[in-house]
Amino acid sequence: MKTNSGRFFEDYTVGQVIAHAVPRTLSGGERALYHALYPARHALYSSDEFAESCGLAAAPMDDLIAFHTVFGKTVPDISLNAIANLGYAEGRFLKPVFAGDTLRSVSEVIGLKQNSNGKSGVVWVRTKGINQHGETVLEYVRWVMVRKANLDAPAPDTVIPKLSDVVDPSTLAVPEGLEFLRYDFTAAGEEHRLADYEIGEKIDHVDGVTIEDAEHMMATRLWQNTAKVHFDRTNRPDGQRLIYGGHVISLARALSFNGLANAQMIAAINAGAHANPCFAGDTVRAWSEVLDKAETRAPGVGTMRLRLVAVKHGAPDFALKGDDGKYHPDVLLDLDYWVFMPL
Amino acid sequence: MKTNSGRFFEDYTVGQVIAHAVPRTLSGGERALYHALYPARHALYSSDEFAESCGLAAAPMDDLIAFHTVFGKTVPDISLNAIANLGYAEGRFLKPVFAGDTLRSVSEVIGLKQNSNGKSGVVWVRTKGINQHGETVLEYVRWVMVRKANLDAPAPDTVIPKLSDVVDPSTLAVPEGLEFLRYDFTAAGEEHRLADYEIGEKIDHVDGVTIEDAEHMMATRLWQNTAKVHFDRTNRPDGQRLIYGGHVISLARALSFNGLANAQMIAAINAGAHANPCFAGDTVRAWSEVLDKAETRAPGVGTMRLRLVAVKHGAPDFALKGDDGKYHPDVLLDLDYWVFMPL
Amino acid sequence: MKTNSGRFFEDYTVGQVIAHAVPRTLSGGERALYHALYPARHALYSSDEFAESCGLAAAPMDDLIAFHTVFGKTVPDISLNAIANLGYAEGRFLKPVFAGDTLRSVSEVIGLKQNSNGKSGVVWVRTKGINQHGETVLEYVRWVMVRKANLDAPAPDTVIPKLSDVVDPSTLAVPEGLEFLRYDFTAAGEEHRLADYEIGEKIDHVDGVTIEDAEHMMATRLWQNTAKVHFDRTNRPDGQRLIYGGHVISLARALSFNGLANAQMIAAINAGAHANPCFAGDTVRAWSEVLDKAETRAPGVGTMRLRLVAVKHGAPDFALKGDDGKYHPDVLLDLDYWVFMPL
Repeated sequence: MKTNSGRFFEDYTVGQVIAHAVPRTLSGGERALYHALYPARHALYSSDEFAESCGLAAAPMDDLIAFHTVFGKTVPDISLNAIANLGYAEGRFLKPVFAGDTLRSVSEVIGLKQNSNGKSGVVWVRTKGINQHGETVLEYVRWVMVRKANLDAPAPDTVIPKLSDVVDPSTLAVPEGLEFLRYDFTAAGEEHRLADYEIGEKIDHVDGVTIEDAEHMMATRLWQNTAKVHFDRTNRPDGQRLIYGGHVISLARALSFNGLANAQMIAAINAGAHANPCFAGDTVRAWSEVLDKAETRAPGVGTMRLRLVAVKHGAPDFALKGDDGKYHPDVLLDLDYWVFMPL
Repeated sequence: MKTNSGRFFEDYTVGQVIAHAVPRTLSGGERALYHALYPARHALYSSDEFAESCGLAAAPMDDLIAFHTVFGKTVPDISLNAIANLGYAEGRFLKPVFAGDTLRSVSEVIGLKQNSNGKSGVVWVRTKGINQHGETVLEYVRWVMVRKANLDAPAPDTVIPKLSDVVDPSTLAVPEGLEFLRYDFTAAGEEHRLADYEIGEKIDHVDGVTIEDAEHMMATRLWQNTAKVHFDRTNRPDGQRLIYGGHVISLARALSFNGLANAQMIAAINAGAHANPCFAGDTVRAWSEVLDKAETRAPGVGTMRLRLVAVKHGAPDFALKGDDGKYHPDVLLDLDYWVFMPL
Repeated sequence: MKTNSGRFFEDYTVGQVIAHAVPRTLSGGERALYHALYPARHALYSSDEFAESCGLAAAPMDDLIAFHTVFGKTVPDISLNAIANLGYAEGRFLKPVFAGDTLRSVSEVIGLKQNSNGKSGVVWVRTKGINQHGETVLEYVRWVMVRKANLDAPAPDTVIPKLSDVVDPSTLAVPEGLEFLRYDFTAAGEEHRLADYEIGEKIDHVDGVTIEDAEHMMATRLWQNTAKVHFDRTNRPDGQRLIYGGHVISLARALSFNGLANAQMIAAINAGAHANPCFAGDTVRAWSEVLDKAETRAPGVGTMRLRLVAVKHGAPDFALKGDDGKYHPDVLLDLDYWVFMPL
C-alpha cells in the first residue's frame, strides 16, 4: 500500500529513533496567520524593535508556532492511530525561531507499556525540533495511547521513563543576549513585573473567544498536522470535528495576555493535559495560577511558573477538578509552564 | 487587579496623552491575509512593479492595513467601555507603510462632554500612528461615547474640539516620489481618470460579499483589536458577534474597485459613520458618490473626494437616509474620504 | 458605465489578445495561507533546504499558487458571464515562481463556436502567466461557454483549435538546475520512487476534508478571483456559494500527498473537468490513477502522468463515470497531469 496507515503499538521499540517527514521553512506569513487565528499580543513576538530592545536580533516566531510546527510533523508517525494524547513533560524551549528558519522533527521512543486489555498500549517519545543549522530549538516528552493492529503481537518489556514533574528553573535556556534592563512596560501593555505576582495568586483573564470550524482547521493545517479527526466531519457520528488540543493551548496563552502581558516567552512546559474535548461553537476563556518564581542569570530576566487553564463558557470561576480528582467537564486544558518575564 | 478593565469617562482629561501598547511589525503576511479577507485589487498595493512605476520603492501595505493596525492598539485604552463609536474626522494618511515597518499608536484627549443623564460622556481623541523612525504615518480624530463607572464623579468642563468638515485638499500629503505620468491603466484595470468622473456621479459597485464569522474574527484579531463584542457570542442575548466597523470599511473599499480601480491611495478621511450594525450572514454591497475633485502638486496626481456607502443586500438603490434624516436600516457605513488618482 | 460587466460571446474575436489587470507580487504570506487552506505537504514547496538539495535556489511557491494567481486575473475578462467552465488542455509549468516574483496574465482567443441555440457560444483562450522579467512561467488553454448579450449579433466563423490530448513528456520544461540525485526520501515522507508505481495502479488517498464557506472564500479572494457565485449567497435561490473549481484542485492535490509524497512538482496539465459543483459542508476525498511514466534529461528526474479524481464523501470506491459515460454525481474533479518525481 502506498499510503501511510500509521504505526501501531507493536511497531514501536524502546530506543527507536524516527525522523519525521517534511521540513518546514517559516516566514512572516506564519506569524501573520498566528495573529489572525489567536488574540496574541505579547510585544516580544509582535515588534522587531521591542525584541531588539530585549537583546534579540528581531521578533522571534511565537514559541507556540515552533511547538506546533514540530508537533505537527510527528502526527503521521506517532498519533495517527492514537486513542488519546495522555500528557506532556520536560518541554524545553532552547533557541528562538526566526523568520527564514527551517524546522524538522525527530522523536525517540523512550517508554512502552502494553495495556492489560492487550489491545493497546502507551508510547512515550521525546521529540526534538531541529533548525537548518542542526541546533535543537525545542524538545518535549509526550505520551499517547496507541492501538495494536495485531492483537497476537507479544507485549514488549515495560519501560516507564523517569520524568521530572517540573523542569528545574536553574536549567532553563535563556536565549542568547536576552535581557530585560531596558524593558518598556508601556509598550508591553502592563506594569506588573515578577515581584508583583504572588505564588498562589489566580488571575481570571476575562475575555472569551467563540471558535469556528474554519479557524481551527486553518490553524491545524498550518502546522501540517494531518490527524483526520480535526478535518473530516464524517469521522464522528455527531458530525463534529475535534479541535486540535494545541489550538486550545494557543488560544488560552493568547487570552492570558490580559493580566500576564509581561510573561513574554515560554521557557518550559512542565506538564499538560487536554482535560476535555473542544468543538466549534465553544466559547473559550482562561485563568492562570502562579505556581512558583525564580531568577535567572540573564540581566533583569526572571521566570515564573504558571498553571494555565482553559475552560468553556459556563464553567464556574477558576474551575479545575472535582472532589473526585477528575477535571470539571468544562475544563479543556490544564497546562503547567515556565515563562521569562522582567524582574 | 492584574487585568485591564479599560478607562471610564471620568478617567479622561483634556490634554491627556496615552501611549498605546504593543508595537507591531508588518510583513508580506499581513498583506496576503488582507487579500484573502477582502476582495482588494488596487494595483498599487498588489504589485511592487506597478508601485515602482508610480515612483514608490515598493508596493506599500494597503492604507487600511495601517489604519486598522493603529486603531486596534487604541481599543484597550479608548473603547473597551464604549457604548458607541460616534464618528471620525481629520483623518490624514501621511506616509506609506511598507513591509518591515513597525507601528505604534499614541492618542491625545482633545475633547470631553458629559451626557445630560450623568451616566456617560463623549470623549474625543486624536490618534497618531508612528513608525519605527518616529514618523507619523497617519492620524485621525475619533469620538466615542463611554460609560462612567463612578456616577458621583464630577462632570469635566465641556470641551468640544473644532474639527474640519473636510480635509482641505491643498494640505493632502502626497507620498514622496509619487507620480502618475507612466500610469498603466490596463494593469490597473480601468480606463477612467479623474476627468472622467463628474461631481455628483453615483457608482453602484455591483458585487456583493456574504460575511462569515470566521472571516471577520480573523480580520479583527489580525489588527490585535480586543473588543469582546467581536469575538464572544455569549456577550449578546442573540448570540451574534458584532462585526468590527473597520471590517465593513475594508470590504466596501475593496468592492469599490469595480468602478474606481484607479482611486489608488486613500489620502484622507473626512468623516465616517457606522450607520447600523453588521453581522455574519449579511451580504454587503457598496456604492460611491463623487463629492469633489482637485489637483495636487505631484506630477499626474489628482485627488477625488468620495462618499463610500456600504449596504446590506436588499437595500434600495443608492440607499442612504430617509426623510427624517436617519440612515436607512440597511445602510452599514457612510464614509467620506479623499483618494489620489491619475489626472 | 464605470463598472465592468464582463465580455459577452459576441465581444470575442479569434486572434484577440487581452492583457488582464492587476499584477500581483507574491510573498511568504501567500505560501503560509496556502498551507493553512490546504493540507499541502510536498517537501519541495515546504522547505528551502529541501528545495536547495534538489538544485533550486529556494522553495518555490506551490505550482497551484502560480496557477490560481494567473487564472484569477483572467476571470473579469473571460468568465464573468460564463455559463460553464468546460475544460483545460496544454497546461505547462515553465518556470518556478519564487517569493518576490510578480505575475501578470495575458490571454489570446484561439477558438470560437456559437451554440446552435444562438444564445451562447464556446470561447477558447490560451492564457500565459508572465513574471516581472517578462518570462512566461506557465500557460494553459481553457474553454468556457459564454452568454451572448445581443442575440442579433452574427455568429463568428467557427474556429476549433487543435489541442493535444496529452502534453508530450519529451517537451516538459524541467526547471533549471533541478536534479533528484541527493533526494531525501525520509524528509519527503515516502519511499516510493517512479519505478515503484505501475501504470494502471490506483491509489486511494484515504483522508477527507470538510469544507467551510470561510475557507473557500478566503482562498478564492487570495487569487483576486472576483466571480460573484463564489462570494454572494443571494446569487442562487438555495443560498449556497459555488466553490471555485480551483479550490477543489488544490484540495485534491494536497490530499494526494498521502501515497504520492514524491510527486513533487506539477509539470503539465493535460486535461481537466469540474465534473460536479462543490459546496460548503461537502467532505472531499481523492484518488489517483497512474496513466503513464517517462524519464527526463534532468539527473534523477522522472515524470509520471496521473489522473487525480476528487469525490464527495459517500462516493463508491474509485468512482468516476457510469455506463452512460457521465460522471458519477459524487465526482467533483477529473484532472489529468504530469508530475516530476525521483527515478
